[in-house]
Amino acid sequence: MRIEISKKDFFEGIQTVNRAVSSKTTLPILSGILLKTEEDKIKLVATDLEIGIEFYVKANIIRDGAIVLPAKYFTSIVRELSDDQIILTADLSNNTAQIKCGQAQFNIHGSPSDEFPLLPKINSKTRFTMYQNILKEMINQVKFAISDDISKPFLTGGLLKFEEKNLLLVATDTYRLSYRRVSFDRKDIIGEEVIIPNKTLNEISKLLNDNEDLVEISITDNQILFKFSGVTIVSRLIDGQFPNYKQVIPKKNNTKAIINKVELLNSTKRASLLAKRDSNIIKINLQEDQLIITANVPEIGQAYERISISLTGQETEIAFNATYLMDCLKVITSEEVILELSGSLSPGVIKDSSGDEYIYIIMPVRSN
Amino acid sequence: MRIEISKKDFFEGIQTVNRAVSSKTTLPILSGILLKTEEDKIKLVATDLEIGIEFYVKANIIRDGAIVLPAKYFTSIVRELSDDQIILTADLSNNTAQIKCGQAQFNIHGSPSDEFPLLPKINSKTRFTMYQNILKEMINQVKFAISDDISKPFLTGGLLKFEEKNLLLVATDTYRLSYRRVSFDRKDIIGEEVIIPNKTLNEISKLLNDNEDLVEISITDNQILFKFSGVTIVSRLIDGQFPNYKQVIPKKNNTKAIINKVELLNSTKRASLLAKRDSNIIKINLQEDQLIITANVPEIGQAYERISISLTGQETEIAFNATYLMDCLKVITSEEVILELSGSLSPGVIKDSSGDEYIYIIMPVRSN
Repeated sequence: MRIEISKKDFFEGIQTVNRAVSSKTTLPILSGILLKTEEDKIKLVATDLEIGIEFYVKANIIRDGAIVLPAKYFTSIVRELSDDQIILTADLSNNTAQIKCGQAQFNIHGSPSDEFPLLPKINSKTRFTMYQNILKEMINQVKFAISDDISKPFLTGGLLKFEEKNLLLVATDTYRLSYRRVSFDRKDIIGEEVIIPNKTLNEISKLLNDNEDLVEISITDNQILFKFSGVTIVSRLIDGQFPNYKQVIPKKNNTKAIINKVELLNSTKRASLLAKRDSNIIKINLQEDQLIITANVPEIGQAYERISISLTGQETEIAFNATYLMDCLKVITSEEVILELSGSLSPGVIKDSSGDEYIYIIMPVRSN
Repeated sequence: MRIEISKKDFFEGIQTVNRAVSSKTTLPILSGILLKTEEDKIKLVATDLEIGIEFYVKANIIRDGAIVLPAKYFTSIVRELSDDQIILTADLSNNTAQIKCGQAQFNIHGSPSDEFPLLPKINSKTRFTMYQNILKEMINQVKFAISDDISKPFLTGGLLKFEEKNLLLVATDTYRLSYRRVSFDRKDIIGEEVIIPNKTLNEISKLLNDNEDLVEISITDNQILFKFSGVTIVSRLIDGQFPNYKQVIPKKNNTKAIINKVELLNSTKRASLLAKRDSNIIKINLQEDQLIITANVPEIGQAYERISISLTGQETEIAFNATYLMDCLKVITSEEVILELSGSLSPGVIKDSSGDEYIYIIMPVRSN
């Protein structure tokens, strides 16, 4: 194997697949990256058996071949090379690669490519496309509510569900629930639903572009494939039944307030500085034309914040974990948010003021 | 006590003195910042008893007074305030401060100001000024060689020494020595020398500007004071006898090479990727017109780097800890460096090519 490749392109590809390299593995080959020539490109693959990422980089292929190189060393070497033109030669008889760039030369020991696991082929009728920026926004508005409680695996991912005319992404850790909906019209796959692991959603959202380029998604019983901008990502799905989130979304409310989002976020952030470290509780008092946030750490002091609001329904008071409240305010895109409450012991609902596309449910905390 | 103050100025001042706030202290008041009105300013003071920092911020003083506020909470509150105008009121009868800014209001418990230790008054005949940018460069070229071995306290700081016509700053951890000299003509203080603690040099170099504004320095037997840009820093000095660094600087050499600094730095950085983690050894082979760097981790691979050089004297080979070599190359300002060697077991000397103002001595490592 022998290729000539641009450092910039090569490094971009290595960084992309690196996200799937296994950090703690009993299978040493998974700490490596597979390099394989294919026509006028080199294919890079990494996988930890949960998620696999494949990326093609244009190269001048002088001699075909494939090898697995240790990701950590290989990545840092390519990062530090000064010239743009890299010549990579692999001696497949002893699984050694030589990297030459300007006056620098590295020999590194690799592993035979046939020991590297193949990414599964996905062949499915549940196949659709959407804009990259829409999928990225959906994931970012939902992923922080995913649970990390491995005793309930069905909560450690986001639910992707096809409803009539809508595609939903929902996540909950039982303390809060985040729900995002986009229009989607594919009668043939109504009712299908899968749970996508947290890590997969995270890595995808980092790799997706903020534009209207398409991402192609295919789903089988236990796997999901994303294909966009030259990247292919295959991930396992999570087994199990996602909770009935519809039951959790309150149908009515006694109090409805329209609040400037940035003011609410900044006030909550400041008040939380004086919220107890463990529970992080702030109290919110909703009055006819103002919202008062208070927090208190007896040995340190108190915080008091006032925001003008427009309220319909009853005045009320509720206590929240400040972090949970801030999480949703950071991802809502509208200038104002709607806060709907039904007393201090019922879940609060926060919505994007522009419609019902984004809904966040937050459980109240009993204060004092 | 009651003041009106700009958030920006106040926060800048708090951040400056924060560097001296004690992070682990048995004396709780040292985790606070002293605020004290003085004419049309507010004085901020923090100290961990080793180093003390004082900073004045312009304010509208409505009522005089002084209080100590917990640095961590106080800093994060001021950081998060949205408006520029802050009103700070302290009730000295119960040592509580109220911070008001826009619709935000905080009450925090403080401590009485008279429990806060006073910074010592420095009155000394050893008093001089220099440009801030020169002092900053001197410290940055030397501080990384300071030892952290507390069993030899006299090595845990930098030696500041007045010689005939020169002012020196020198540091060594016995593996390498860094020496910087600037012209200085004050016959009355020739021969004086003090050891300034690592932390003090570090904090000062961060606060000094990159310009020719003056810094005023005063030295007593056990303390040093720096005054610049509104900041006053008082630090204890380290007791003990600094080693005779003159003995360490080789007087002659058998090999002298002129090397491009950036090429040497980049090649060393790359080669060190394949140097053993613990010892970080790279080998340097000096030939008539080239320098070869090699490194080797048997289970991973080898690195080989070549740089064109101009050599006088004998060809030779030497092994260094790559980190020690890179440390000095990062702070040398000339385009080329001079490497002087006397065989593979004698210390190497690296100089700024523009003169003898900067000298770095590095002990060789026995390889294989």
